[in-house]
Amino acid sequence: MNRPAIVSIPLLLSSVLSALACSSLALAAKPVAPEKPLLLAEQDLQTAAFLRDAVRDDNKAWAVLESLTTEVGPRLAGSEGNARAVEWGQKKLQQLGFDKVWTEPVHYPTWQRGVETAEITSPYPQKLIITALGNSVGTTESGLTAPIIAFDTLEALKAAPDNVAKGKIVLITKTMKKFRNGADYGPTVGARSAGAVEAAKKGAVGFLIRSVGTDHDRLPHTGNMHYAPDVTAIPAAALSNPDADQLQRILKRGQEVQVHLTMGSHAGPEYQSANVIGEIRGSEKPDEYIILGGHLDSWDLGTGALDDGAGVAISVGAVEAIKHLGLTPKRSIRVILFADEEQGLYGGQQYAEAHKNEQKKIIAAAEADFGAGPVYRMDTHVKVQSLAVVAQMMSVLKPLNIASGDNAAGDGPDLRGLHANGTALFSLELDGTDYFNYHHTPNDTLDKVDPESLKQSTAAYATWAWLAAQAPDDFGFSNIPTNDD
Amino acid sequence: MNRPAIVSIPLLLSSVLSALACSSLALAAKPVAPEKPLLLAEQDLQTAAFLRDAVRDDNKAWAVLESLTTEVGPRLAGSEGNARAVEWGQKKLQQLGFDKVWTEPVHYPTWQRGVETAEITSPYPQKLIITALGNSVGTTESGLTAPIIAFDTLEALKAAPDNVAKGKIVLITKTMKKFRNGADYGPTVGARSAGAVEAAKKGAVGFLIRSVGTDHDRLPHTGNMHYAPDVTAIPAAALSNPDADQLQRILKRGQEVQVHLTMGSHAGPEYQSANVIGEIRGSEKPDEYIILGGHLDSWDLGTGALDDGAGVAISVGAVEAIKHLGLTPKRSIRVILFADEEQGLYGGQQYAEAHKNEQKKIIAAAEADFGAGPVYRMDTHVKVQSLAVVAQMMSVLKPLNIASGDNAAGDGPDLRGLHANGTALFSLELDGTDYFNYHHTPNDTLDKVDPESLKQSTAAYATWAWLAAQAPDDFGFSNIPTNDD
Repeated sequence: MNRPAIVSIPLLLSSVLSALACSSLALAAKPVAPEKPLLLAEQDLQTAAFLRDAVRDDNKAWAVLESLTTEVGPRLAGSEGNARAVEWGQKKLQQLGFDKVWTEPVHYPTWQRGVETAEITSPYPQKLIITALGNSVGTTESGLTAPIIAFDTLEALKAAPDNVAKGKIVLITKTMKKFRNGADYGPTVGARSAGAVEAAKKGAVGFLIRSVGTDHDRLPHTGNMHYAPDVTAIPAAALSNPDADQLQRILKRGQEVQVHLTMGSHAGPEYQSANVIGEIRGSEKPDEYIILGGHLDSWDLGTGALDDGAGVAISVGAVEAIKHLGLTPKRSIRVILFADEEQGLYGGQQYAEAHKNEQKKIIAAAEADFGAGPVYRMDTHVKVQSLAVVAQMMSVLKPLNIASGDNAAGDGPDLRGLHANGTALFSLELDGTDYFNYHHTPNDTLDKVDPESLKQSTAAYATWAWLAAQAPDDFGFSNIPTNDD
Repeated sequence: MNRPAIVSIPLLLSSVLSALACSSLALAAKPVAPEKPLLLAEQDLQTAAFLRDAVRDDNKAWAVLESLTTEVGPRLAGSEGNARAVEWGQKKLQQLGFDKVWTEPVHYPTWQRGVETAEITSPYPQKLIITALGNSVGTTESGLTAPIIAFDTLEALKAAPDNVAKGKIVLITKTMKKFRNGADYGPTVGARSAGAVEAAKKGAVGFLIRSVGTDHDRLPHTGNMHYAPDVTAIPAAALSNPDADQLQRILKRGQEVQVHLTMGSHAGPEYQSANVIGEIRGSEKPDEYIILGGHLDSWDLGTGALDDGAGVAISVGAVEAIKHLGLTPKRSIRVILFADEEQGLYGGQQYAEAHKNEQKKIIAAAEADFGAGPVYRMDTHVKVQSLAVVAQMMSVLKPLNIASGDNAAGDGPDLRGLHANGTALFSLELDGTDYFNYHHTPNDTLDKVDPESLKQSTAAYATWAWLAAQAPDDFGFSNIPTNDD
């Protein structure tokens, strides 16, 4: 995933119900009779509980994840691995018995990594481990050598005098802290996205950032960055955290520290890839649908097991379970494996654009893009009248140790466009305590996924998808402020 | 460190004392009167307790380690970093007030790492992360491509039919298990040392090993390997553990798996480096001396904080503490920072050879080469009459949570030559539970060292060194079988 993470304020089930009560009260004052909220049938809740328990004991999502990470491996947008992933996705959904499998085109620019080396040339010559940030330009073939100027934060760099970094390499040293919901990603990632622009404005010739990650491994975290018109595009890379520590220790000694960088990264050609979509057909309202998704692309360094193989596996596993258990939902359920999330949310945006005319048929959406879980709480962004159905959903999710959240769920990266067009959102929050140890590094591999967590997460998404498809009412998204606003 | 680790059988203090009792009994049967063991004076034990507590609260060893790993960084034998380490060592010992600081020459062959890349070319193209094993030859510039043939162990490879690996790359997949004393290093490392020879005997053109390490990081573990006369020298590298997992998952699918390797490693010129030695002078027996040591070289991938910056810091910190606390030992105490342990134990062997004529003056030796600790037990290899003094030492070490061990201590790598010539050994066992997560990888950096453990270890070595220097008798090593035998 590539979004700033969201901190939301818990709203207990009791508050949900009291909000409903107030809303009924308000209606009671009007001449029309108070509307009784439409509820899920007891049978649907029982079926959901059966589904939940069956998926909780099932390894199908693991098999999907193992297959993707092993047979495809890394799948950077626009790469040969990415093309194989699109093929893999179609075959996998067909094999698993989805009623309909198709692709929809997604266009995006590409970027290619090249050689990437760094070394301190003085005062204490030694290698540093770096990785180019996505979208970064390279250096010349012989590289660049310049003194380091360090700032604690992006804000400190912005506040520094003009030309302070003239001819230098700017280093931003902010350390990311660990939270279950990744709360420090937002405050840290700005320096990755915008640091090179701000550094160049101060005259810098290169930009380094301490990795946006919570580990102590010499595996730097890549991730997207951007340039600005009228600001020189300078090479930008991340140092692994121990390398940033080392550079900071040397800088503390007070001598000028020279670093030599070589980077071969560069823009590639425009590319056409695809969102891969699988659907199981609804019995009563086949044209209305529920969306579950993850993104199929990954960074090039790891095999994208957590980001976002897990999201692919959870979504596919959840819907496949409904199908293979012989359950037929009232609405259709669609799994979307989004193209190129990492380098600009292209798949999600182009899906929303292509489907905006059928917006009213897109009843609700959830995505999984924060590792393998477990899910520890569910936030929503639905009309207040639907909170009674949400409370019913929670009664089935609770045995999975999932807490009620609030009704101000932020949109995940691939649902941003749909949400902007009016789709109701469900945010099944995945435990990301260790997620940023591995995120966007070579270490994002299958061994980092806990199979039990993956089962629980898949069970939660399956339960949600089933109940959303059975819900008597739609979730009628209205303009409730979200935590993103 | 680069030795097979040792499993020794605990022998409790009570057993030590009962062994002594038996030995007295045996003597009692003879016509001569039973010898009363010579004991440490109460005053020396009290001083040792004071020293122990002072070092336990001191950060000097950390400062030494921080300085070495920051200002020198990686220090592969024969490299520019290695030359800087030798200078650093002399200056540091002088700054710290050692009475005498000098170097003694050590000669060794060198080896240089070059480019190292690997990728699966079929059936599922993707990169693999490898690192050349020390001493390995390289490939041609274009590399080699061959199918993989996997074996669980070195023994399985040896037992396989002739020519079974003809034209192939042999992979050995044995997984190393975690133990406090590194007990699985010995059973695992043989494949690293001898695997390429055995693979070549079966016709292989290349050799890969699952890393000899207990982590799940995509940071492969290097380490020395050797060739044999009359057996073709083939390129040999280690895969990171997640890469080995990935290759094994693909192999399990039953198709032929082709891998492309390029390695630029090659032998370098002969080199003269040095053991760096610092001494504090004894007051009563200045020509007799106690040795503490670690090795100054490291592998090139990390900054050698655990292997063996910690050993350097513990040894230097322990002896420096004796000096700066104003204590004057009866015997001299010598710190030796050994040259090129990693690629052939050259420093230790050449020290033993150069000093064999004064062998009787080398009273006892201990080395630290297993990370930063804490020390959890002390084994010895001394004459049985000295076990009473060992029991006295233990009474001062016990408050550091150090248990009594046995009298069959194996020699560490740098003391092998001295021990073979007759030097009594003390083995202060360092807790190596996590040591092999980082050993010989880029991840062997300062952040992996726990400052509290380093203090405790330094306190233990200081206590031991002081008491060994004060001991009334020598430790008269005799041919007691060791755990290495």
